[in-house]
Amino acid sequence: MSRKLDDVAIISYGMTKFGKREGKGLIDLYSEAAEEALQRVKVDTIDALVTAAMSPGRYENIMGPANIMAGLLGLYDATVFRVENTSGSGGAAIYAGWLMVASGQVNSALIIGGEKMTHLPTEENAAIIAGLVHEYEKKHGVTLPSYAAMLARLYMEKYSMPREALGYVAVKNHLHGSMNPKAHFQKAITLEEYMNSKVVNDPLKVMDYTPVSDGAAAILLMRKEIAYSYTNKPIIIRAVAGSTDTHIVHEREDLLILNSVKNSFEKALRFGGISRDQIGLIELHDMATILELVELESMGFYPRGKSWIAAMEFETRYDGELPVNTSGGLKAKGHPIGATGVAQAYEVSLQLRGEAGSRQAKREIDYALSMSMGGFGNNAFSIIYEKGW
Amino acid sequence: MSRKLDDVAIISYGMTKFGKREGKGLIDLYSEAAEEALQRVKVDTIDALVTAAMSPGRYENIMGPANIMAGLLGLYDATVFRVENTSGSGGAAIYAGWLMVASGQVNSALIIGGEKMTHLPTEENAAIIAGLVHEYEKKHGVTLPSYAAMLARLYMEKYSMPREALGYVAVKNHLHGSMNPKAHFQKAITLEEYMNSKVVNDPLKVMDYTPVSDGAAAILLMRKEIAYSYTNKPIIIRAVAGSTDTHIVHEREDLLILNSVKNSFEKALRFGGISRDQIGLIELHDMATILELVELESMGFYPRGKSWIAAMEFETRYDGELPVNTSGGLKAKGHPIGATGVAQAYEVSLQLRGEAGSRQAKREIDYALSMSMGGFGNNAFSIIYEKGW
Repeated sequence: MSRKLDDVAIISYGMTKFGKREGKGLIDLYSEAAEEALQRVKVDTIDALVTAAMSPGRYENIMGPANIMAGLLGLYDATVFRVENTSGSGGAAIYAGWLMVASGQVNSALIIGGEKMTHLPTEENAAIIAGLVHEYEKKHGVTLPSYAAMLARLYMEKYSMPREALGYVAVKNHLHGSMNPKAHFQKAITLEEYMNSKVVNDPLKVMDYTPVSDGAAAILLMRKEIAYSYTNKPIIIRAVAGSTDTHIVHEREDLLILNSVKNSFEKALRFGGISRDQIGLIELHDMATILELVELESMGFYPRGKSWIAAMEFETRYDGELPVNTSGGLKAKGHPIGATGVAQAYEVSLQLRGEAGSRQAKREIDYALSMSMGGFGNNAFSIIYEKGW
Repeated sequence: MSRKLDDVAIISYGMTKFGKREGKGLIDLYSEAAEEALQRVKVDTIDALVTAAMSPGRYENIMGPANIMAGLLGLYDATVFRVENTSGSGGAAIYAGWLMVASGQVNSALIIGGEKMTHLPTEENAAIIAGLVHEYEKKHGVTLPSYAAMLARLYMEKYSMPREALGYVAVKNHLHGSMNPKAHFQKAITLEEYMNSKVVNDPLKVMDYTPVSDGAAAILLMRKEIAYSYTNKPIIIRAVAGSTDTHIVHEREDLLILNSVKNSFEKALRFGGISRDQIGLIELHDMATILELVELESMGFYPRGKSWIAAMEFETRYDGELPVNTSGGLKAKGHPIGATGVAQAYEVSLQLRGEAGSRQAKREIDYALSMSMGGFGNNAFSIIYEKGW
């Protein structure tokens, strides 16, 4: 990978409340997130727009949401398209927007991710999500939630993890969500409540999974040289890198390592010229609690089979040594599919700028990471951020 | 725009037969096009994959088609996502892939565009296409085909174009399609047949419009420096540029100029450092015949109100001075939405290499242009190609 690119900064960011947003469609949500970003920092022109969403066609029969937004935002003579990478659409959209600015094609790019989901009945949402499972696996009745349950069972058996360890992840992310006014769930839970909650895919309980949510998030990218005219606290995007693993999950040699996650992160570290130890905060893809552990280990933040101990010792809590998912994560903040990768960048921006309120990380953070994953780890984009001041 | 980018070459290309592809879904079509490209030139690895499609979710409940293809093609540790820009999805996908290679992020990128449409009844296809019209316009019953009819009427009145002039465009594109074994319609038509064909949106007839088709196309991009190891006739992508116009069509001051088309083309010329006169062949977005004329004039290839005369004098035929849509265009080749922009690059590659068979342009071509348009001109990407030998 070449380094002859311009530095790119996030100069503004916005996010809707995640949750059941009655009467608000994808375009309303996109607009709300974009408006917050464009109110915070006033710019004269925006050269490019990349939107992220998984299937506005299937959800609302909307075609070309990027073009609709370009119209609503009054962008003229801009470079505009939508990026889709299932659950990792937001990360892939940031990659595309970053590349446009970094390569000097444009000076500024607005990235908006979102999804409108809760208006459809649960069964229909399940059918849509099933659309991203491999045909072969679908025939065998496998779903993403059941894969997570199998992964949890494998992990527990291999590493002798006690059942309640996953509860510590859920309790932590709900605590973070309770401190995030934009989270879907803003209610802290106790370990007891968690342990008593209904099993949906043994061993995973309803409280292990992300809910179905509506929402959107936006970030405004600018060439670093220009960024300081708009803010004295730009967030620099140090690196963005993508990677893929097999689409069929059982073709993987070692199910407990997500290679797309590992490789995209390692590529980003190399590109950014920094080491893992310098990362002080992480937003990752906890579609189920077990994934938070497996992703942390895939990226080498903890030795294999040990991340659950860190969770039980509160190391990954907002006040711990390595805060993970201070936003509440997918678990408590919610997961409007196309929004998630962009909402991670929103959270990282708040944290690096010290604007995260009661959930502000206690430790000093120089570099942060967001990891946006598609499917069951068949695609991942890792993004490394640093303070630009 | 910066010019500190690597040169990018098309080293291979593939395309399915367009038309009613019974029993073949989007993934089959993607695979068929990719296979042709990967058979023609053998490469060890592909670093990136960008797929284009408008709404595989709405058409077939497929989520993440790029990830599915990455799996089928055995790509591992690749950078992968889908790009969507309605009818211009293919052009936007080429832009993203070009930027990845040009900026040095990857050495190679496979671009595959496709759409599966004919399995749905006409009314359902019409409803899907209506999903890309602005809400305000939809309420007034406007559709893309009816916009084309209004544009034709305006043009005829303003420039005193005789009705049969549009027939010359249809007859030419059908002639080209009759010489393209992959075109949806491979039947030449006479002006008389055209004039006698059914009016669907006065003044436009059924033979003015593109059909509903299935199909896919693929191109393989490689850093130019490496390209010569694989082919002695690489097609160089000299420039790619995008632009947008208003989403609401009636907000445009002058309906007879498509500003996204004009501006994306002019940006591409500036970026590529070449002049309009050097372009020797064009593939453009003739969703309806009138659009071929308006696009040519928007890009300044003919004075305003004069391109129909060139059509009637056969200038834009394969054996004319400025061959346009030698593939048959959307009119005769068909328009599987996400495939079209990539299929244009396929045709340009054949033409520059002298492999277009009986429809090979008679004139010498050094530079060629493809223009991939989304919606009713609210988004366009222009791509300029040159011979790399």
